[in-house]
Order: sequence, then structure tokens, then C-alpha cells
Amino acid sequence: MTTQGYNVAVVGATGAVGEKMLETLEKKNFPINELHLLSSKRSAGKEINFKGVTYTVKEATPESFENIQIALFSAGGSVSKALAHEAVKRGAVVVDNTSAFRMDPDVPLVVPEVNEEDIAEHNGIIANPNCSTIQMVAALKPIQDQFGLSRVIVSTYQAVSGAGTKAVNELEAQSQAFLEGKELEPEILPVSGEKQHYPIAFNALPQIDVFQENGYTFEEMKMINETKKIMHDSEIKVAATCVRLPFFTSHAESVYVEVDKDNISVEQVQEVIKNADGVVLEDDVTNQVYPTPLSAAGKPDVFVGRVRKDLDNSKGFHLWVVSDNLLKGAAWNSVQIAESLIKNNWLQK
Amino acid sequence: MTTQGYNVAVVGATGAVGEKMLETLEKKNFPINELHLLSSKRSAGKEINFKGVTYTVKEATPESFENIQIALFSAGGSVSKALAHEAVKRGAVVVDNTSAFRMDPDVPLVVPEVNEEDIAEHNGIIANPNCSTIQMVAALKPIQDQFGLSRVIVSTYQAVSGAGTKAVNELEAQSQAFLEGKELEPEILPVSGEKQHYPIAFNALPQIDVFQENGYTFEEMKMINETKKIMHDSEIKVAATCVRLPFFTSHAESVYVEVDKDNISVEQVQEVIKNADGVVLEDDVTNQVYPTPLSAAGKPDVFVGRVRKDLDNSKGFHLWVVSDNLLKGAAWNSVQIAESLIKNNWLQK
Repeated sequence: MTTQGYNVAVVGATGAVGEKMLETLEKKNFPINELHLLSSKRSAGKEINFKGVTYTVKEATPESFENIQIALFSAGGSVSKALAHEAVKRGAVVVDNTSAFRMDPDVPLVVPEVNEEDIAEHNGIIANPNCSTIQMVAALKPIQDQFGLSRVIVSTYQAVSGAGTKAVNELEAQSQAFLEGKELEPEILPVSGEKQHYPIAFNALPQIDVFQENGYTFEEMKMINETKKIMHDSEIKVAATCVRLPFFTSHAESVYVEVDKDNISVEQVQEVIKNADGVVLEDDVTNQVYPTPLSAAGKPDVFVGRVRKDLDNSKGFHLWVVSDNLLKGAAWNSVQIAESLIKNNWLQK
Repeated sequence: MTTQGYNVAVVGATGAVGEKMLETLEKKNFPINELHLLSSKRSAGKEINFKGVTYTVKEATPESFENIQIALFSAGGSVSKALAHEAVKRGAVVVDNTSAFRMDPDVPLVVPEVNEEDIAEHNGIIANPNCSTIQMVAALKPIQDQFGLSRVIVSTYQAVSGAGTKAVNELEAQSQAFLEGKELEPEILPVSGEKQHYPIAFNALPQIDVFQENGYTFEEMKMINETKKIMHDSEIKVAATCVRLPFFTSHAESVYVEVDKDNISVEQVQEVIKNADGVVLEDDVTNQVYPTPLSAAGKPDVFVGRVRKDLDNSKGFHLWVVSDNLLKGAAWNSVQIAESLIKNNWLQK
């Protein structure tokens, strides 16, 4: 480490996650020597302020990564596929926030509170999991460690910001039109580029990302496959239903789990969650205390409430898990991985 | 039956469900001789148009039910508790849309497509189930009949109209304020009369109705207990998580079920749903076809989509169930019960 810090590139700096990436670097006072803001050709030329200095966004090319030590990618899977290896070739370690390499057996998929040690195995690329997966495994890890975990069934309540800035704008404009008694033709959600679009304002769409041949969406399969990889247990049964909802920030999840041990109490589950890193227990129903998307927005933690025992299965528990999808679900987790690379001297292989 | 029809009272005629009750009576051309619109003292005096005739709403008292044959109650549990037996005493049969008598062993709890024959056992009162229960059991009944049913885990996505007209107004006003960058103090949701209120606009609230001692909400316990009663199987394992969301009409439900028979295909489940009364299969993910709250609003059916097999449990299936909570979830089902009373000569005991 130089005393001044590291040369850092942020790829996709003008996007919804890129913006949070810069906020997080600033908030965590990340040791930066040179900062390079990169984007598609279309967004190049924009100016962005970071710690009082104005940076001009440049088009990301293979040569952009000369002399970069850490590259944070969040510009879509195709950009990562085209440029991540180019960055690695030039000596950078890439933290990639797309689905491009997540299931690649040579690429660690990391939530630092869950499997930080996997970062040590990297070959230049570390993948940041899907937003809805990150918050769930952060909440499940302390349960797995203490009581074992055999089954997860999750139904999600996901914010539009997970679909990017255009989806955020669509919800805002559509909501306004609806309240004025007008209709605005849907153009983005559920999935930009798909044939059918449906209104999101005052609605719920049971489709996030494209459908796979097995009838599940890609988002659902990400939750299923990534959970097993991050938790190092291909035997955990995971089922997911992912739903897009009309709010801007934070994903919420109704999670049913079955643990291995019998006779575990709600208080024991609450206790391990309370003591877990990065997880905050907000669970006092007598006083109507539980997390909501609005209460979690802007905070880096994963919030858990509504912990209760299944009434039929003595090993079953229900949880309500909420986190800011752009922070812990994306930017915050990526920067945590970068910090771990530095702290553990894992940048050089 | 007189040739002119029946003397019908609608109790709670000025409420959100009462309004749909009148719309449904009109739409179904229900055989009415005299129509009596009743309400609390506060709403008495309002005028309501029905089939071109203006009716003045009167305060509901025991004497209001003299000469009434069918009384449709939807004015809250306390009104039903105070007046339903008074109506029965005077010869009326009550169809009650509150939770007052649902779990009373002497009161049939009925979704006509599921257990119409239970109406015959009435002692003057028939209970209309909770809105979120009705649509779920309508979708599950054909599955239970054909394949057996041992386990249900549901997470709901519920519209604000289930919490009444004030909640609808709150969502509308709060959404408008939010879009203007203002904040509006929450006063109604999640539960009118509770200590804490939270914003519903662009948010999700994991509380519907008050919390019980076991950590579940009353809404969740309604789904659990009512399902077993309606489906005549106290052994079915039912778990529920109920969430209020920022849309006006229709509840959606992510439902996981385990059937008794093995080797059942998705196509077989789709087929029995397609052939069930009152249930419409909208399930073609290749063309992004699935129901949403907006697409179901204003329609009397229960819509089912996203049918898929669990990837770990060969007897497990996932469904997405959507219906208009004020129609099939309340008014439509109540009027169906009243029609069945007439059709089957079950009015007189």
C-alpha cells in the first residue's frame, strides 16, 4: 500500500449503483490515490463531484485500466464480460457487481460477513452477489452457524431502483399520472428490453429479470444458486418468488427457514441475529417495531424483524428481512470487499 | 320466494365493501323486493343510488331487521356482534363479512366454490371469510381435491382498500405529498386505532391487523385458522406472513404448497386450476402472462399464474394468486352465499 492510497476505477459511475459506490467510498474514507470514473461511450463526458473535486467521466476501454489497482464494476454484465479480464490483465483486482461471473467456479462470490475468507482465493475477479441474495444470506448466516440450515423459502418485495434509474423515473412519472387520473404507457418494467411492459405504479409485478426454461425468473435462480455458493452448502433447499413493487429503495423479504436443531426458541434466533455483524434486529411487535423499506433506506445494515416460530414445524421460523438494495445490496458490499482486499493483503496474488 | 324477490338489508352500506355489495347486487340482478340501506348513526342520512332509485341510509338498530329476509353485514365486528343475532331473531338470515363469528363452530364459513354445502348447516348466520383467505382457498381447492394438500406457506401482497376508505385516502394523499417532496404524517395504517402509524406510500408494512401473543398478526391467524375450517382439514399445515402494500385494489399472494401425491406435473396443476369454478389460469411466462393487482381489479374471479414446481421437493409447487379483495374477497362472495341460500332453499330452516 502506498501511503496515499490506491488507484481506483469505478465502471458505471453514472448509474444508480455507481452513484452509491462513490457515496460509499467517500463515507468510508476509502484510501484513494487516483480516482478514475468510467462509463459507456454514451455517458462519457459527464462531470461528477467527489470530495469537492470535479471528475470527468471517461469511456471505459481496455487501456482505462493501466495502472489501476482496484476496479469496481457496475455497468451491466456485457461491460463486465468485455472489460473485467482486460482490467485483470493490466494488474487490477476487479470487484464485479453484475451477474457475469457470479457462478464461475474460479470467481469467489462474497458477502464479507458470510464468507470473507473466499476473497483470498480470487484470480483477479471477485463477484458481488445479487442484491436480494446479499441481504438474505447476511441474515441467515448466524442462523446457519448456530442451528444449521436445511430449507429456505423466500418471497421478495423489491424496489424499482434494482432495475436502474429509468425504472425509478418510470415509477415516479407513472404514479403522478395515476394520481391525476391519467395513464402513462409502461416502457421499462418489469424488464427493460422485454416484449411486454406493465404498469408498476400502484401495482405488483411477479417478474424480475427474464424467465428461464424451468419457469423461474433469472432473479429467482440467482437467489437459489448464489445462496448455495456463498453459504458453501449445495444441499440447502432454496426456493424463491421475486416480485417488483412500487417503492423506490430497499428490498424486503418474507423468509421461511428450517433449522437442523430442534427445540430452538424465537429468543435464541433473535439473539444470534442481534449479535451478527452487519445485521440489526428490529423486532418488538408489542410496540409495533419492525423494519420497512423506508426505514432501512440510506443505511448500510441488514434489518430483521417479525421473527416467529412456525406453528406446525418445530424447526421452522419466519423472518422479515429488509435492506437498502443499492447499499448493502450493491455499493456497500462491493466497497467492503475492496476494503477486505487491502486489510488482508489479498490484492497481490 | 315471492315473485318480487326478497327484502334485503345491507349493513355498512356507506363503506368500501358496502359500495361493492350494492354494485354486485345490481350486476347479478339479485331478486330484491325491498332494499334497506343501514349504517352507523354517523353515516345515517346519506343518500345512495341503486338501479336508478335514491335510498336514504338509516341507522342500524334491532328494529331495522323486522321483515328482512337476507341481511348482508359489513360494518365491522362490533356492529355484527351487536346486531346479527337481533336480525336472526326477527327472521333474517345474516351473511356476515366481519371476523365476529368466523371461528364459531355453529357458524358455517363459506366460499361457495369450496364448501357451498356448509351453508345448509347454518343457524341464521353464515360467515364470509377474510379476503386474503377466500382467494387462496379458491385456488387451493381444486389442488386439494385432485392431489391432496398437506402444507401451505403464503406471503401476501395486500391492497390498502382492505383497511377501508380512510386507508385508501391516506395512500392517495401520502403518495401525492411524497411526489411533491413533502411529508404527510401517517394517521391510519398499518392499523387504525393502534399506537404507531407508518407511511404506506412507496413503502411496505409487515403488519395487517393487531399482533397476537404468539407474534403473528390477527390477519395471519385468520388465514391459518380459516383455511383449515373452510377446507375441512385441521391437519393441513398453514403458515402466513401478511404485508400491506401501496396499491389500492386486489391482494396478491405468493403461495407454496405441498401435495400428497408424487410425480404431479406443473401441467396437471395448471389443468385442475383451469377447470375450477371461479378461478382463471393466467400463466404463460413465455409471453410474460401472469396476473397483477391492476389486471385483476374490478373482476370477480381469482387469477392464478406462475405455477411451477419446487426445485427440491417433488411434491412442492409455487403459485401466484391475485383477486379483487373487495369483490371475490368480500362483496361478491357474500352475494354468492345469498344466492346459494335462495337457490337451494336454505333460507328457511
